[in-house]
Amino acid sequence: MYSVGMSTSERLIESTRDLLWERGYVGTSPKAILERAGAGQGSMYHHFKGKQDLALAAIRRTAEELLATTGALLDGPGTPYERIRAYLLRERDVLRGCPIGRLTMDPDIVADEALRAPVDETLGRVRAQLARVVEEGVEQGQFPPGLDGEEIAATILATVQGGYVLARASGSPAAFDTGVRGLLSLLSPR
Amino acid sequence: MYSVGMSTSERLIESTRDLLWERGYVGTSPKAILERAGAGQGSMYHHFKGKQDLALAAIRRTAEELLATTGALLDGPGTPYERIRAYLLRERDVLRGCPIGRLTMDPDIVADEALRAPVDETLGRVRAQLARVVEEGVEQGQFPPGLDGEEIAATILATVQGGYVLARASGSPAAFDTGVRGLLSLLSPR
Repeated sequence: MYSVGMSTSERLIESTRDLLWERGYVGTSPKAILERAGAGQGSMYHHFKGKQDLALAAIRRTAEELLATTGALLDGPGTPYERIRAYLLRERDVLRGCPIGRLTMDPDIVADEALRAPVDETLGRVRAQLARVVEEGVEQGQFPPGLDGEEIAATILATVQGGYVLARASGSPAAFDTGVRGLLSLLSPR
Repeated sequence: MYSVGMSTSERLIESTRDLLWERGYVGTSPKAILERAGAGQGSMYHHFKGKQDLALAAIRRTAEELLATTGALLDGPGTPYERIRAYLLRERDVLRGCPIGRLTMDPDIVADEALRAPVDETLGRVRAQLARVVEEGVEQGQFPPGLDGEEIAATILATVQGGYVLARASGSPAAFDTGVRGLLSLLSPR
């Protein structure tokens, strides 16, 4: 399934990521991980303590990728409004949904403090990135003076996460785009 | 499990609603439905064609309740802004999430056109209710003249659905409330 150059521990992490996404935590058996990674049980326990430890590594890898993408857009060039716009309009696989946000719908992940922690931390860091940009925009007079950075950051992230829900319900990305356009019109410098 | 006065078909619908919520479509077996409803297989097939038919009845029941609640608030008294505020601030079991929105995370429901249809239709009707109120507010000059009712309605519904995601990630309703406050500050008549 994975490129020959990948180390066994890399292949184990990548197969766990795919299986968590496709089947959820309960459906991701150590056997399925090993089969997909083409690895033996010994090598799994050499690198990881078990399924939970591997899931944690998989979630952290996904989180790093998400934070790198959002950071590049939100700390990139442009005015605060333009950077938020770039974040909202970035190319997304809308019907797949957010690789981190979707984990909150996995009851086994939400019920396990250790697995929920990196999900919460990642969404918290995206919110913090967004809040800084909103506050910069308020300071520069690009956004209305009364706006609270933390609150608007939560609204922006919620619109994105909820946009995925609306898109999945309708089987089309259009509803995601409509919600984002509405948010941009509310944030648009007047 | 259910009150003695309930008819068998009512008990079957209620048990299916509970099981869909707790275990998802794949985990909701006809056997579990019958056990919880205290009904026999014959009575199930007397009233319903099978599991899919029962799930459809369960989803429709949940949808009716949701539309009645949102309709009462959005068509209720108050200015357009006050009615949207009442909708956003209504008492919710935030960590449980939206009984309709959460179904979009069930892969078996999203993959089944017949089961996805009432989910999509319900969210579409909430959006239409919201859009009418926003348009009324624009006409009355309570909202900025450029706002598009359909777009803002999608933003409002996405903020609610995404607020549930943020709340579940953090294990606390606070993030939902923060996102809603941010949206209200953006909608607030200036």
